[in-house]
Amino acid sequence: MKVWQLEAGDIDRIALGVGILGTGGGGNPYLGAVAAKQQLAEGRRIRVIQPSALDDDALVLALGGIGAPTVSVEKMWEGEEGVRLVQAIEQHTGRKVQAVIADEVGGANGIVPMLTAAQLDLPVVDGDGMGRAFPEVQMTTFFINGQDTSPAAIADADGNVMTVTSACSPLWLERLLRAATVAMGCTALMSSPPMRGAFIKQYAVPLTLSQAWQLGDAVLSAQQAKHSPVAAILRESHGRLLFSGKVVDVGRSIAGGFVRGQLRLGGLEAFTGQTLEIDIQNEYLVARSNGQVLLTVPDLIAIVDSETGRPIGTEEQRYGLRVAVIGIPAPALLRTPQALAVVGPAAFGYQLPYSPLAEALSPQAAAGYS
Amino acid sequence: MKVWQLEAGDIDRIALGVGILGTGGGGNPYLGAVAAKQQLAEGRRIRVIQPSALDDDALVLALGGIGAPTVSVEKMWEGEEGVRLVQAIEQHTGRKVQAVIADEVGGANGIVPMLTAAQLDLPVVDGDGMGRAFPEVQMTTFFINGQDTSPAAIADADGNVMTVTSACSPLWLERLLRAATVAMGCTALMSSPPMRGAFIKQYAVPLTLSQAWQLGDAVLSAQQAKHSPVAAILRESHGRLLFSGKVVDVGRSIAGGFVRGQLRLGGLEAFTGQTLEIDIQNEYLVARSNGQVLLTVPDLIAIVDSETGRPIGTEEQRYGLRVAVIGIPAPALLRTPQALAVVGPAAFGYQLPYSPLAEALSPQAAAGYS
Repeated sequence: MKVWQLEAGDIDRIALGVGILGTGGGGNPYLGAVAAKQQLAEGRRIRVIQPSALDDDALVLALGGIGAPTVSVEKMWEGEEGVRLVQAIEQHTGRKVQAVIADEVGGANGIVPMLTAAQLDLPVVDGDGMGRAFPEVQMTTFFINGQDTSPAAIADADGNVMTVTSACSPLWLERLLRAATVAMGCTALMSSPPMRGAFIKQYAVPLTLSQAWQLGDAVLSAQQAKHSPVAAILRESHGRLLFSGKVVDVGRSIAGGFVRGQLRLGGLEAFTGQTLEIDIQNEYLVARSNGQVLLTVPDLIAIVDSETGRPIGTEEQRYGLRVAVIGIPAPALLRTPQALAVVGPAAFGYQLPYSPLAEALSPQAAAGYS
Repeated sequence: MKVWQLEAGDIDRIALGVGILGTGGGGNPYLGAVAAKQQLAEGRRIRVIQPSALDDDALVLALGGIGAPTVSVEKMWEGEEGVRLVQAIEQHTGRKVQAVIADEVGGANGIVPMLTAAQLDLPVVDGDGMGRAFPEVQMTTFFINGQDTSPAAIADADGNVMTVTSACSPLWLERLLRAATVAMGCTALMSSPPMRGAFIKQYAVPLTLSQAWQLGDAVLSAQQAKHSPVAAILRESHGRLLFSGKVVDVGRSIAGGFVRGQLRLGGLEAFTGQTLEIDIQNEYLVARSNGQVLLTVPDLIAIVDSETGRPIGTEEQRYGLRVAVIGIPAPALLRTPQALAVVGPAAFGYQLPYSPLAEALSPQAAAGYS
């Protein structure tokens, strides 16, 4: 079994990459990186394995944060939430968890499973259920492809743990966990129901931690070489520059356990005189310029600092930031009709068609990340 | 072991009695009675035992409805919720439940455990954790006296089940279950954490099903004999007539999973020219007449039809109803300083002293129900 044992420098690269893939959400990757490097500093190890290395029968648990990113940067993890989740699921199933994975690689949630993996010395699978971040629990390639709806668990920093023993549907699971999240102060850690290795091999978006590392490495290398990090991201992600400009308005509120709002940008350079509006539900969902839709979910809208390429989360947006807005094609597993019913524009209440960015770009991009 | 096996006539009496003890809440007893008599009609049995009949080590589960009474009369039980709760707790603890009890005897919740008891052929303990109804989970003699805060479970009519694996405090348990209740549509069935027989013997308000039966029997006997059912309730409950009049205003809304509001009555007969205001949080909490506080929690405020003595729940109140408002002394277990911190006026946000009705009445009432 090929094992990739992470070092601090890998964490830095992955944190940059998951920030880009987070499309504004998934939790603050800086905080995730600090926590992961602390685990390494305390002598624990973070081992990443490819999905193919899993036994078909292995019990794999997907862990991640749930709630509003604006809250999670202020109300921080206690640190053992993931361990309590693994214990809750193991007690409920009577089986040992053999590996962890991210439900969403985007943002801190790409790193969250590593913390529990380090604490329990479990391997982390290189892949996830989104290839990005989405705001709702049911929006994963796992649920789209028939993951069980229970048992799931949720834990907060105070020591409260709830287990969903039975849920009628993935959407009911979202409702129940969201309600618990709000009661827990709008931020918590959750585990979706356990999966088998064979299921992960088939339905995880593969190698997204490697992809995040590549993106982060491209940014750091460009910074060192005094090249444009934005250009490096565009190359590495097979993305398209949607807009370049300055944040002129940030509307943001916490409602029902989510951050919702809108971001408005004024154009600079080639985009001078244009404006861009981006709708937010934890993540950047839809980008419109002068009334025309440029990009929608499930394609990725990444906003990065124009100079450094550092990804900027919805919770960090503020007036005056100079940013580049990058469209990145969604992974192939998110572009099936079955997937679009769950993560396409209509699933977010938009009466908009989905025009895949991949089809407008190179054949390589159209084939997805893998 | 002395066992009281209920017949349909017993259910009718108990339904009237728990309606009176429900102080407006605890769910509609009529619906509970229909469901219980259906169990008997289908050939199942409902066996009531005294707390003293429990083995000290017996695992006892307290079951009841949670949510807003106004919702629970419209969104009805599916019927197997209690069975799913018992299964969830048994799976979590690895132990068999040996008896069920009510967290609150008031309203339908005095009957709810009987339904599950009939389905699983378990005995029901004659007693409960309130001797009345209260709106919040932590407001029981069980939690007041150190009941574990987990595992608790909640189930809805759709088949969703959540288990609280760990809760920091009884108040946290209330918050978590309330959030789940709201997600489940503002009405659900819950089980508080399992208790031992020895604990029930010490801390349950004893024989409250018998008390409810006596109250109901007094009402029915008075009706048959063309005597005043209100006078019969006053005698049987050692209560005091607080007011007699007509409902002139009902303010009621669903907020945070509760019914909250205020009721205003105009006086008739001896109370002509006076008004009475009653604050509601699922139950009738505080009664004021012309600015003067007449009665507060934990003492009971029962509102019954002037003619028939039939108890009227918060969800049934409407303009024009002719009612008698009866104050009933709280059980002794609710009048300790420890209990008043959880169920006294201050626990509901009132800056009011608690003046026990029992002290103003006979020595017999002051000693509590038992």
